[in-house]
Amino acid sequence: MNLDRFSINQMTVKQLPLPALAAHCIRLGIPGIGLWREPVQEYGVEAAARLVRDAGLAVTTLCRGGFFTGDAWLESNREAIDECVVLGTDTLVLVSGGLPAGSRDLSAARARIADAIGELAPYAAQRGVRLAIEPLHPMFASDRCAVSTLDQALAIAEEFPADQVGVVVDTYHLWWDDRAPAAVARAGAAGRIHSFQLADWTTPLPAGVLNGRGQLGTGAIDLAAWCARVAEAGYTGPVEVELFNDELWERDGVEVLEETLGAFLAV
Amino acid sequence: MNLDRFSINQMTVKQLPLPALAAHCIRLGIPGIGLWREPVQEYGVEAAARLVRDAGLAVTTLCRGGFFTGDAWLESNREAIDECVVLGTDTLVLVSGGLPAGSRDLSAARARIADAIGELAPYAAQRGVRLAIEPLHPMFASDRCAVSTLDQALAIAEEFPADQVGVVVDTYHLWWDDRAPAAVARAGAAGRIHSFQLADWTTPLPAGVLNGRGQLGTGAIDLAAWCARVAEAGYTGPVEVELFNDELWERDGVEVLEETLGAFLAV
Repeated sequence: MNLDRFSINQMTVKQLPLPALAAHCIRLGIPGIGLWREPVQEYGVEAAARLVRDAGLAVTTLCRGGFFTGDAWLESNREAIDECVVLGTDTLVLVSGGLPAGSRDLSAARARIADAIGELAPYAAQRGVRLAIEPLHPMFASDRCAVSTLDQALAIAEEFPADQVGVVVDTYHLWWDDRAPAAVARAGAAGRIHSFQLADWTTPLPAGVLNGRGQLGTGAIDLAAWCARVAEAGYTGPVEVELFNDELWERDGVEVLEETLGAFLAV
Repeated sequence: MNLDRFSINQMTVKQLPLPALAAHCIRLGIPGIGLWREPVQEYGVEAAARLVRDAGLAVTTLCRGGFFTGDAWLESNREAIDECVVLGTDTLVLVSGGLPAGSRDLSAARARIADAIGELAPYAAQRGVRLAIEPLHPMFASDRCAVSTLDQALAIAEEFPADQVGVVVDTYHLWWDDRAPAAVARAGAAGRIHSFQLADWTTPLPAGVLNGRGQLGTGAIDLAAWCARVAEAGYTGPVEVELFNDELWERDGVEVLEETLGAFLAV
Protein backbone atom coordinates (compact mmCIF):
# COMPACT_ATOMS: atom_id res chain seq x y z
CA MET A 1 0.00 0.00 0.00
CA ASN A 2 1.07 3.59 -0.64
CA LEU A 3 1.86 6.11 2.04
CA ASP A 4 -0.80 8.51 0.77
CA ARG A 5 -3.52 6.02 1.79
CA PHE A 6 -2.16 5.45 5.31
CA SER A 7 -4.00 6.47 8.43
CA ILE A 8 -2.71 5.55 11.86
CA ASN A 9 -5.38 4.83 14.39
CA GLN A 10 -4.55 6.51 17.67
CA MET A 11 -5.10 3.30 19.65
CA THR A 12 -2.30 1.52 17.80
CA VAL A 13 0.19 3.72 19.62
CA LYS A 14 -1.88 4.81 22.58
CA GLN A 15 1.31 5.20 24.61
CA LEU A 16 2.14 8.30 22.51
CA PRO A 17 0.56 11.58 23.66
CA LEU A 18 -1.34 13.26 20.84
CA PRO A 19 1.23 16.08 20.25
CA ALA A 20 4.05 13.55 19.92
CA LEU A 21 1.96 11.39 17.61
CA ALA A 22 1.13 14.39 15.42
CA ALA A 23 4.78 15.47 15.30
CA HIS A 24 5.94 12.02 14.26
CA CYS A 25 3.21 11.79 11.64
CA ILE A 26 4.54 15.03 10.13
CA ARG A 27 8.11 13.71 10.24
CA LEU A 28 7.13 10.42 8.57
CA GLY A 29 4.78 11.95 6.02
CA ILE A 30 1.75 10.13 7.42
CA PRO A 31 -1.33 11.87 6.02
CA GLY A 32 -4.16 10.55 8.20
CA ILE A 33 -5.12 9.71 11.75
CA GLY A 34 -8.06 7.90 13.34
CA LEU A 35 -9.00 9.31 16.73
CA TRP A 36 -10.71 7.89 19.83
CA ARG A 37 -13.15 9.80 21.95
CA GLU A 38 -11.65 9.15 25.39
CA PRO A 39 -8.06 10.32 24.77
CA VAL A 40 -9.35 13.22 22.67
CA GLN A 41 -11.69 14.31 25.45
CA GLU A 42 -8.85 14.04 27.91
CA TYR A 43 -6.68 16.29 25.75
CA GLY A 44 -9.61 18.56 24.98
CA VAL A 45 -11.67 18.22 21.80
CA GLU A 46 -11.02 21.78 20.57
CA ALA A 47 -7.32 21.54 21.35
CA ALA A 48 -7.05 18.17 19.59
CA ALA A 49 -8.83 19.62 16.57
CA ARG A 50 -6.34 22.51 16.40
CA LEU A 51 -3.41 20.17 16.86
CA VAL A 52 -4.30 17.80 14.01
CA ARG A 53 -5.37 20.69 11.76
CA ASP A 54 -2.05 22.47 12.32
CA ALA A 55 -0.25 19.19 11.60
CA GLY A 56 -2.09 18.88 8.30
CA LEU A 57 -3.51 15.52 9.35
CA ALA A 58 -6.78 14.27 7.92
CA VAL A 59 -8.96 12.81 10.67
CA THR A 60 -10.22 9.71 8.89
CA THR A 61 -12.60 8.48 11.61
CA LEU A 62 -13.68 9.04 15.17
CA CYS A 63 -14.08 5.89 17.26
CA ARG A 64 -16.58 5.33 18.55
CA GLY A 65 -20.28 5.76 18.89
CA GLY A 66 -22.73 2.94 19.36
CA PHE A 67 -23.44 0.74 22.39
CA PHE A 68 -27.08 1.09 21.51
CA THR A 69 -28.18 -1.77 23.74
CA GLY A 70 -27.16 0.10 26.90
CA ASP A 71 -28.58 3.22 28.51
CA ALA A 72 -28.15 6.89 27.57
CA TRP A 73 -26.97 5.98 24.11
CA LEU A 74 -28.76 8.80 22.30
CA GLU A 75 -27.14 11.64 24.23
CA SER A 76 -23.73 10.02 24.06
CA ASN A 77 -23.95 9.42 20.32
CA ARG A 78 -25.10 12.96 19.63
CA GLU A 79 -22.07 14.19 21.53
CA ALA A 80 -19.87 11.91 19.43
CA ILE A 81 -21.37 13.39 16.27
CA ASP A 82 -20.70 16.90 17.56
CA GLU A 83 -17.10 15.89 18.28
CA CYS A 84 -16.75 14.67 14.70
CA VAL A 85 -17.76 18.11 13.47
CA VAL A 86 -15.24 19.83 15.72
CA LEU A 87 -12.46 17.41 14.76
CA GLY A 88 -13.21 17.75 11.07
CA THR A 89 -13.98 14.10 10.32
CA ASP A 90 -17.01 12.99 8.37
CA THR A 91 -17.09 9.45 9.77
CA LEU A 92 -18.21 8.14 13.16
CA VAL A 93 -17.46 4.45 13.72
CA LEU A 94 -20.24 2.58 15.51
CA VAL A 95 -19.58 -0.38 17.79
CA SER A 96 -23.18 -1.29 18.30
CA GLY A 97 -23.25 -3.08 21.66
CA GLY A 98 -23.93 -6.65 22.72
CA LEU A 99 -26.77 -8.26 24.63
CA PRO A 100 -28.55 -6.02 27.11
CA ALA A 101 -27.98 -7.04 30.74
CA GLY A 102 -29.88 -10.23 31.50
CA SER A 103 -30.96 -10.85 27.91
CA ARG A 104 -30.22 -13.90 25.76
CA ASP A 105 -32.09 -12.60 22.73
CA LEU A 106 -29.56 -11.71 20.03
CA SER A 107 -32.25 -11.07 17.41
CA ALA A 108 -33.88 -8.54 19.69
CA ALA A 109 -30.51 -6.86 20.31
CA ARG A 110 -29.96 -6.59 16.56
CA ALA A 111 -33.41 -5.13 16.03
CA ARG A 112 -32.79 -2.62 18.82
CA ILE A 113 -29.52 -1.56 17.16
CA ALA A 114 -31.26 -1.00 13.84
CA ASP A 115 -33.94 1.08 15.57
CA ALA A 116 -31.35 3.16 17.42
CA ILE A 117 -29.44 3.92 14.23
CA GLY A 118 -32.70 5.00 12.66
CA GLU A 119 -33.24 7.37 15.56
CA LEU A 120 -29.69 8.73 15.37
CA ALA A 121 -29.34 9.05 11.59
CA PRO A 122 -31.26 12.30 11.04
CA TYR A 123 -29.07 14.17 13.55
CA ALA A 124 -25.91 12.78 11.94
CA ALA A 125 -27.12 13.74 8.48
CA GLN A 126 -27.99 17.23 9.65
CA ARG A 127 -24.43 17.64 10.98
CA GLY A 128 -22.81 16.12 7.87
CA VAL A 129 -21.43 13.07 9.68
CA ARG A 130 -21.63 9.57 8.23
CA LEU A 131 -22.45 6.67 10.55
CA ALA A 132 -20.21 3.67 9.86
CA ILE A 133 -21.55 0.42 11.31
CA GLU A 134 -18.68 -1.88 12.23
CA PRO A 135 -19.42 -5.58 12.31
CA LEU A 136 -17.27 -7.12 15.03
CA HIS A 137 -15.97 -10.69 15.07
CA PRO A 138 -18.61 -13.13 16.36
CA MET A 139 -16.52 -13.69 19.48
CA PHE A 140 -17.71 -10.21 20.60
CA ALA A 141 -21.41 -10.86 19.95
CA SER A 142 -22.50 -11.10 23.58
CA ASP A 143 -20.57 -8.30 25.20
CA ARG A 144 -19.56 -5.75 22.59
CA CYS A 145 -21.36 -5.94 19.26
CA ALA A 146 -24.29 -8.08 18.18
CA VAL A 147 -23.63 -7.07 14.56
CA SER A 148 -21.29 -9.90 13.59
CA THR A 149 -21.17 -9.96 9.79
CA LEU A 150 -20.85 -7.45 6.99
CA ASP A 151 -24.17 -8.73 5.63
CA GLN A 152 -25.87 -7.77 8.89
CA ALA A 153 -24.25 -4.34 8.95
CA LEU A 154 -25.22 -3.71 5.33
CA ALA A 155 -28.79 -4.80 5.94
CA ILE A 156 -29.07 -2.07 8.57
CA ALA A 157 -27.22 0.54 6.50
CA GLU A 158 -29.32 -0.07 3.40
CA GLU A 159 -32.35 1.43 5.11
CA PHE A 160 -30.65 4.84 4.77
CA PRO A 161 -28.95 6.88 2.03
CA ALA A 162 -25.37 5.72 1.43
CA ASP A 163 -23.88 9.08 2.35
CA GLN A 164 -25.56 8.86 5.74
CA VAL A 165 -25.08 5.28 6.90
CA GLY A 166 -22.43 2.82 5.76
CA VAL A 167 -20.09 0.19 7.11
CA VAL A 168 -16.57 -0.38 8.33
CA VAL A 169 -14.63 -3.16 6.61
CA ASP A 170 -12.09 -4.41 9.16
CA THR A 171 -9.99 -7.38 8.14
CA TYR A 172 -9.66 -8.67 11.71
CA HIS A 173 -13.40 -8.98 12.15
CA LEU A 174 -14.31 -10.29 8.69
CA TRP A 175 -11.45 -12.39 7.38
CA TRP A 176 -13.01 -15.76 8.32
CA ASP A 177 -16.35 -15.11 6.59
CA ASP A 178 -16.82 -16.73 3.19
CA ARG A 179 -19.74 -14.38 2.54
CA ALA A 180 -17.74 -11.23 3.24
CA PRO A 181 -16.19 -10.84 -0.24
CA ALA A 182 -19.62 -10.61 -1.87
CA ALA A 183 -20.74 -8.18 0.83
CA VAL A 184 -17.64 -6.02 0.25
CA ALA A 185 -18.48 -5.84 -3.44
CA ARG A 186 -22.06 -4.90 -2.67
CA ALA A 187 -21.02 -2.29 -0.09
CA GLY A 188 -18.48 -0.78 -2.46
CA ALA A 189 -20.87 -0.60 -5.40
CA ALA A 190 -23.34 1.25 -3.19
CA GLY A 191 -20.72 3.66 -1.84
CA ARG A 192 -21.19 2.34 1.67
CA ILE A 193 -17.60 1.52 2.62
CA HIS A 194 -17.02 4.42 4.97
CA SER A 195 -13.86 3.04 6.53
CA PHE A 196 -11.36 0.31 5.77
CA GLN A 197 -9.26 -0.92 8.67
CA LEU A 198 -6.39 -3.39 8.80
CA ALA A 199 -5.21 -5.72 11.54
CA ASP A 200 -3.87 -9.24 11.38
CA TRP A 201 -5.19 -12.38 13.09
CA THR A 202 -2.67 -13.94 15.43
CA THR A 203 -3.07 -16.86 17.80
CA PRO A 204 -3.20 -17.76 20.62
CA LEU A 205 -5.73 -15.07 21.46
CA PRO A 206 -5.09 -13.25 24.73
CA ALA A 207 -7.44 -13.50 27.70
CA GLY A 208 -10.49 -11.35 27.07
CA VAL A 209 -9.57 -11.43 23.34
CA LEU A 210 -9.88 -7.65 22.92
CA ASN A 211 -6.18 -6.89 22.69
CA GLY A 212 -5.15 -9.54 20.19
CA ARG A 213 -5.17 -7.48 16.99
CA GLY A 214 -1.88 -8.42 15.40
CA GLN A 215 0.72 -6.37 13.54
CA LEU A 216 0.27 -6.51 9.77
CA GLY A 217 2.02 -9.48 8.21
CA THR A 218 2.42 -11.48 11.42
CA GLY A 219 -0.82 -13.45 11.22
CA ALA A 220 -3.24 -15.55 9.21
CA ILE A 221 -4.96 -12.92 7.07
CA ASP A 222 -4.14 -12.43 3.41
CA LEU A 223 -4.11 -8.63 3.76
CA ALA A 224 -3.01 -8.02 0.16
CA ALA A 225 -6.05 -9.97 -1.06
CA TRP A 226 -8.29 -7.87 1.20
CA CYS A 227 -6.78 -4.62 -0.10
CA ALA A 228 -7.33 -5.81 -3.66
CA ARG A 229 -10.90 -6.85 -2.87
CA VAL A 230 -11.77 -3.49 -1.34
CA ALA A 231 -10.08 -1.66 -4.24
CA GLU A 232 -12.06 -3.73 -6.74
CA ALA A 233 -15.20 -2.71 -4.90
CA GLY A 234 -14.31 0.87 -5.79
CA TYR A 235 -12.97 2.10 -2.46
CA THR A 236 -10.18 4.66 -2.84
CA GLY A 237 -10.19 6.22 0.62
CA PRO A 238 -7.81 6.03 3.56
CA VAL A 239 -6.72 2.70 5.02
CA GLU A 240 -6.52 2.80 8.78
CA VAL A 241 -4.30 0.54 10.82
CA GLU A 242 -5.88 -0.11 14.19
CA LEU A 243 -4.10 -2.50 16.52
CA PHE A 244 -5.06 -3.27 20.10
CA ASN A 245 -2.14 -5.22 21.38
CA ASP A 246 -0.66 -5.32 24.85
CA GLU A 247 2.78 -6.25 23.54
CA LEU A 248 2.86 -3.31 21.15
CA TRP A 249 1.60 -0.98 23.87
CA GLU A 250 4.46 -1.97 26.16
CA ARG A 251 7.04 -0.91 23.59
CA ASP A 252 8.34 2.50 22.59
CA GLY A 253 5.51 4.25 20.73
CA VAL A 254 7.70 5.85 18.08
CA GLU A 255 9.29 2.50 17.28
CA VAL A 256 5.83 0.89 16.96
CA LEU A 257 4.63 3.76 14.76
CA GLU A 258 7.57 3.32 12.41
CA GLU A 259 7.21 -0.46 12.39
CA THR A 260 3.50 -0.16 11.63
CA LEU A 261 4.16 2.23 8.77
CA GLY A 262 6.73 -0.21 7.37
CA ALA A 263 4.32 -3.12 7.70
CA PHE A 264 1.64 -1.11 5.91
CA LEU A 265 3.93 -0.19 3.02
CA ALA A 266 4.93 -3.87 2.74
CA VAL A 267 1.35 -5.13 2.29
CA MET B 1 -34.46 -31.61 28.80
CA ASN B 2 -35.18 -35.19 29.91
CA LEU B 3 -32.64 -37.52 31.43
CA ASP B 4 -33.16 -40.10 28.68
CA ARG B 5 -31.66 -37.67 26.14
CA PHE B 6 -28.58 -36.84 28.21
CA SER B 7 -25.07 -37.77 27.20
CA ILE B 8 -22.07 -36.59 29.17
CA ASN B 9 -19.03 -35.86 27.10
CA GLN B 10 -15.97 -37.31 28.75
CA MET B 11 -14.05 -34.02 28.47
CA THR B 12 -16.59 -32.23 30.67
CA VAL B 13 -15.28 -34.21 33.64
CA LYS B 14 -11.89 -35.21 32.35
CA GLN B 15 -10.60 -35.32 35.95
CA LEU B 16 -12.70 -38.50 36.43
CA PRO B 17 -11.08 -41.76 35.34
CA LEU B 18 -13.30 -43.70 32.94
CA PRO B 19 -14.33 -46.42 35.47
CA ALA B 20 -15.42 -43.79 38.00
CA LEU B 21 -17.28 -41.87 35.31
CA ALA B 22 -19.08 -45.03 34.20
CA ALA B 23 -19.99 -45.95 37.78
CA HIS B 24 -21.42 -42.50 38.49
CA CYS B 25 -23.35 -42.57 35.23
CA ILE B 26 -24.98 -45.82 36.36
CA ARG B 27 -25.75 -44.33 39.79
CA LEU B 28 -27.30 -41.18 38.28
CA GLY B 29 -29.16 -42.98 35.48
CA ILE B 30 -27.20 -41.20 32.75
CA PRO B 31 -27.79 -43.16 29.55
CA GLY B 32 -25.08 -41.86 27.22
CA ILE B 33 -21.46 -40.85 27.03
CA GLY B 34 -19.32 -39.12 24.42
CA LEU B 35 -15.74 -40.34 24.35
CA TRP B 36 -12.41 -38.83 23.32
CA ARG B 37 -9.70 -40.71 21.54
CA GLU B 38 -6.73 -39.80 23.72
CA PRO B 39 -8.09 -40.84 27.14
CA VAL B 40 -9.72 -43.90 25.58
CA GLN B 41 -6.42 -44.95 23.99
CA GLU B 42 -4.68 -44.40 27.30
CA TYR B 43 -7.18 -46.66 29.04
CA GLY B 44 -7.16 -49.12 26.15
CA VAL B 45 -9.79 -49.06 23.43
CA GLU B 46 -10.98 -52.64 23.97
CA ALA B 47 -11.06 -52.18 27.74
CA ALA B 48 -12.98 -48.93 27.39
CA ALA B 49 -15.46 -50.62 25.08
CA ARG B 50 -16.06 -53.40 27.62
CA LEU B 51 -16.39 -50.91 30.45
CA VAL B 52 -19.05 -48.75 28.80
CA ARG B 53 -20.88 -51.81 27.44
CA ASP B 54 -21.01 -53.39 30.88
CA ALA B 55 -22.27 -50.09 32.29
CA GLY B 56 -25.07 -50.06 29.72
CA LEU B 57 -23.89 -46.70 28.40
CA ALA B 58 -24.59 -45.69 24.81
CA VAL B 59 -21.48 -44.17 23.24
CA THR B 60 -23.07 -41.25 21.44
CA THR B 61 -19.94 -39.98 19.66
CA LEU B 62 -16.21 -40.38 19.45
CA CYS B 63 -14.23 -37.13 19.34
CA ARG B 64 -12.43 -36.61 17.15
CA GLY B 65 -11.23 -37.21 13.67
CA GLY B 66 -10.32 -34.49 11.23
CA PHE B 67 -7.33 -32.13 11.10
CA PHE B 68 -7.34 -32.70 7.37
CA THR B 69 -5.04 -29.77 6.66
CA GLY B 70 -2.12 -31.41 8.46
CA ASP B 71 -0.10 -34.50 7.62
CA ALA B 72 -0.94 -38.18 8.03
CA TRP B 73 -4.62 -37.41 8.34
CA LEU B 74 -5.84 -40.42 6.36
CA GLU B 75 -4.21 -43.07 8.53
CA SER B 76 -5.21 -41.30 11.73
CA ASN B 77 -8.83 -40.93 10.63
CA ARG B 78 -9.09 -44.55 9.56
CA GLU B 79 -7.86 -45.54 13.01
CA ALA B 80 -10.50 -43.28 14.54
CA ILE B 81 -13.18 -45.01 12.46
CA ASP B 82 -11.91 -48.40 13.60
CA GLU B 83 -12.07 -47.20 17.19
CA CYS B 84 -15.71 -46.14 16.66
CA VAL B 85 -16.50 -49.70 15.61
CA VAL B 86 -14.81 -51.18 18.68
CA LEU B 87 -16.49 -48.68 21.01
CA GLY B 88 -19.89 -49.27 19.48
CA THR B 89 -20.61 -45.72 18.35
CA ASP B 90 -21.87 -44.85 14.89
CA THR B 91 -20.65 -41.25 14.94
CA LEU B 92 -17.17 -39.81 14.53
CA VAL B 93 -16.95 -36.06 15.18
CA LEU B 94 -14.67 -34.22 12.77
CA VAL B 95 -12.74 -31.11 13.75
CA SER B 96 -11.46 -30.34 10.32
CA GLY B 97 -8.25 -28.36 10.89
CA GLY B 98 -7.22 -24.77 10.28
CA LEU B 99 -4.79 -23.18 7.87
CA PRO B 100 -1.88 -25.38 6.81
CA ALA B 101 1.47 -24.12 8.13
CA GLY B 102 2.52 -20.98 6.27
CA SER B 103 -0.76 -20.61 4.38
CA ARG B 104 -3.16 -17.66 4.44
CA ASP B 105 -5.63 -19.21 2.02
CA LEU B 106 -8.80 -20.12 3.91
CA SER B 107 -10.70 -21.04 0.74
CA ALA B 108 -7.99 -23.52 -0.19
CA ALA B 109 -8.08 -24.99 3.32
CA ARG B 110 -11.84 -25.43 3.04
CA ALA B 111 -11.50 -27.10 -0.36
CA ARG B 112 -8.84 -29.42 1.02
CA ILE B 113 -11.14 -30.40 3.88
CA ALA B 114 -13.94 -31.25 1.47
CA ASP B 115 -11.55 -33.34 -0.63
CA ALA B 116 -10.25 -35.18 2.42
CA ILE B 117 -13.75 -36.04 3.61
CA GLY B 118 -14.47 -37.37 0.15
CA GLU B 119 -11.44 -39.59 0.40
CA LEU B 120 -12.36 -40.78 3.89
CA ALA B 121 -16.10 -41.30 3.41
CA PRO B 122 -16.04 -44.67 1.60
CA TYR B 123 -14.02 -46.29 4.39
CA ALA B 124 -16.35 -44.85 7.03
CA ALA B 125 -19.41 -46.05 5.12
CA GLN B 126 -17.93 -49.51 4.76
CA ARG B 127 -17.44 -49.70 8.52
CA GLY B 128 -20.87 -48.26 9.32
CA VAL B 129 -19.58 -45.06 10.90
CA ARG B 130 -21.11 -41.67 10.17
CA LEU B 131 -18.80 -38.69 9.74
CA ALA B 132 -20.11 -35.63 11.59
CA ILE B 133 -18.55 -32.36 10.43
CA GLU B 134 -18.42 -29.89 13.30
CA PRO B 135 -18.34 -26.21 12.39
CA LEU B 136 -16.26 -24.43 15.01
CA HIS B 137 -16.67 -20.82 16.08
CA PRO B 138 -14.91 -18.43 13.67
CA MET B 139 -12.38 -17.61 16.38
CA PHE B 140 -10.88 -21.05 15.67
CA ALA B 141 -10.69 -20.63 11.88
CA SER B 142 -6.93 -20.21 11.62
CA ASP B 143 -5.66 -22.85 14.03
CA ARG B 144 -8.32 -25.47 14.56
CA CYS B 145 -11.15 -25.56 12.05
CA ALA B 146 -11.62 -23.62 8.82
CA VAL B 147 -15.25 -24.80 8.71
CA SER B 148 -16.86 -21.92 10.61
CA THR B 149 -20.59 -22.08 9.87
CA LEU B 150 -23.27 -24.72 9.70
CA ASP B 151 -23.89 -23.68 6.09
CA GLN B 152 -20.29 -24.53 5.21
CA ALA B 153 -20.45 -27.88 7.00
CA LEU B 154 -23.72 -28.75 5.29
CA ALA B 155 -22.36 -27.80 1.88
CA ILE B 156 -19.62 -30.38 2.34
CA ALA B 157 -21.93 -33.01 3.82
CA GLU B 158 -24.49 -32.68 1.06
CA GLU B 159 -22.07 -34.22 -1.42
CA PHE B 160 -22.65 -37.56 0.36
CA PRO B 161 -25.59 -39.67 1.51
CA ALA B 162 -27.05 -38.40 4.80
CA ASP B 163 -26.34 -41.63 6.63
CA GLN B 164 -22.65 -41.29 5.75
CA VAL B 165 -21.80 -37.62 6.28
CA GLY B 166 -23.64 -35.13 8.47
CA VAL B 167 -22.99 -32.30 10.88
CA VAL B 168 -22.63 -31.50 14.56
CA VAL B 169 -24.85 -28.74 15.90
CA ASP B 170 -23.02 -27.25 18.87
CA THR B 171 -24.62 -24.26 20.52
CA TYR B 172 -21.29 -22.74 21.58
CA HIS B 173 -20.02 -22.58 18.02
CA LEU B 174 -23.23 -21.51 16.29
CA TRP B 175 -25.25 -19.37 18.66
CA TRP B 176 -24.14 -16.03 17.18
CA ASP B 177 -25.02 -16.91 13.54
CA ASP B 178 -28.29 -15.50 12.22
CA ARG B 179 -28.16 -18.02 9.38
CA ALA B 180 -27.79 -21.03 11.67
CA PRO B 181 -31.52 -21.54 12.40
CA ALA B 182 -32.31 -22.03 8.71
CA ALA B 183 -29.32 -24.35 8.36
CA VAL B 184 -30.48 -26.39 11.36
CA ALA B 185 -33.89 -26.82 9.74
CA ARG B 186 -32.27 -27.88 6.48
CA ALA B 187 -29.89 -30.28 8.21
CA GLY B 188 -32.70 -31.82 10.24
CA ALA B 189 -34.99 -32.27 7.26
CA ALA B 190 -32.21 -34.10 5.46
CA GLY B 191 -31.39 -36.32 8.45
CA ARG B 192 -27.92 -34.83 8.73
CA ILE B 193 -27.86 -33.76 12.39
CA HIS B 194 -25.58 -36.51 13.65
CA SER B 195 -24.83 -34.90 16.98
CA PHE B 196 -26.27 -32.10 19.09
CA GLN B 197 -23.99 -30.63 21.72
CA LEU B 198 -24.61 -28.02 24.39
CA ALA B 199 -22.31 -25.50 26.01
CA ASP B 200 -22.94 -21.94 27.09
CA TRP B 201 -21.12 -18.77 26.03
CA THR B 202 -19.49 -16.96 28.93
CA THR B 203 -17.22 -13.92 28.91
CA PRO B 204 -14.49 -12.88 29.35
CA LEU B 205 -12.99 -15.63 27.23
CA PRO B 206 -9.87 -17.23 28.70
CA ALA B 207 -6.44 -16.92 27.06
CA GLY B 208 -6.27 -19.25 24.07
CA VAL B 209 -10.10 -19.33 24.13
CA LEU B 210 -10.30 -23.13 23.95
CA ASN B 211 -11.33 -23.75 27.53
CA GLY B 212 -14.09 -21.19 27.83
CA ARG B 213 -17.11 -23.43 27.21
CA GLY B 214 -19.44 -22.43 29.99
CA GLN B 215 -21.76 -24.46 32.21
CA LEU B 216 -25.33 -24.56 30.89
CA GLY B 217 -27.37 -21.61 32.10
CA THR B 218 -24.45 -19.41 33.10
CA GLY B 219 -23.97 -17.62 29.78
CA ALA B 220 -25.47 -15.74 26.87
CA ILE B 221 -27.06 -18.56 24.86
CA ASP B 222 -30.78 -19.22 24.86
CA LEU B 223 -30.28 -22.99 25.18
CA ALA B 224 -33.98 -23.74 25.47
CA ALA B 225 -34.57 -22.02 22.13
CA TRP B 226 -31.78 -24.09 20.58
CA CYS B 227 -33.24 -27.32 21.93
CA ALA B 228 -36.63 -26.36 20.53
CA ARG B 229 -35.09 -25.45 17.18
CA VAL B 230 -33.26 -28.75 16.88
CA ALA B 231 -36.37 -30.66 17.96
CA GLU B 232 -38.45 -28.82 15.36
CA ALA B 233 -35.90 -29.88 12.79
CA GLY B 234 -36.80 -33.46 13.64
CA TYR B 235 -33.82 -34.45 15.77
CA THR B 236 -34.72 -36.88 18.54
CA GLY B 237 -31.27 -38.24 19.40
CA PRO B 238 -28.96 -37.78 22.36
CA VAL B 239 -27.95 -34.34 23.57
CA GLU B 240 -24.33 -34.20 24.60
CA VAL B 241 -22.95 -31.73 27.11
CA GLU B 242 -19.35 -30.97 26.29
CA LEU B 243 -17.60 -28.36 28.41
CA PHE B 244 -13.94 -27.45 28.23
CA ASN B 245 -13.44 -25.30 31.26
CA ASP B 246 -10.41 -24.93 33.47
CA GLU B 247 -12.51 -23.91 36.46
CA LEU B 248 -14.72 -26.99 36.18
CA TRP B 249 -11.68 -29.22 35.69
CA GLU B 250 -10.15 -27.94 38.92
CA ARG B 251 -13.18 -29.03 40.93
CA ASP B 252 -14.30 -32.44 42.15
CA GLY B 253 -15.39 -34.43 39.09
CA VAL B 254 -18.41 -36.06 40.70
CA GLU B 255 -19.68 -32.70 41.88
CA VAL B 256 -19.27 -31.28 38.35
CA LEU B 257 -21.02 -34.31 36.85
CA GLU B 258 -24.00 -33.89 39.16
CA GLU B 259 -24.09 -30.13 38.59
CA THR B 260 -23.97 -30.64 34.82
CA LEU B 261 -26.80 -33.16 34.96
CA GLY B 262 -28.85 -30.70 37.02
CA ALA B 263 -28.12 -27.88 34.58
CA PHE B 264 -29.17 -30.12 31.67
CA LEU B 265 -32.45 -31.07 33.29
CA ALA B 266 -33.11 -27.38 34.00
CA VAL B 267 -32.80 -26.32 30.34
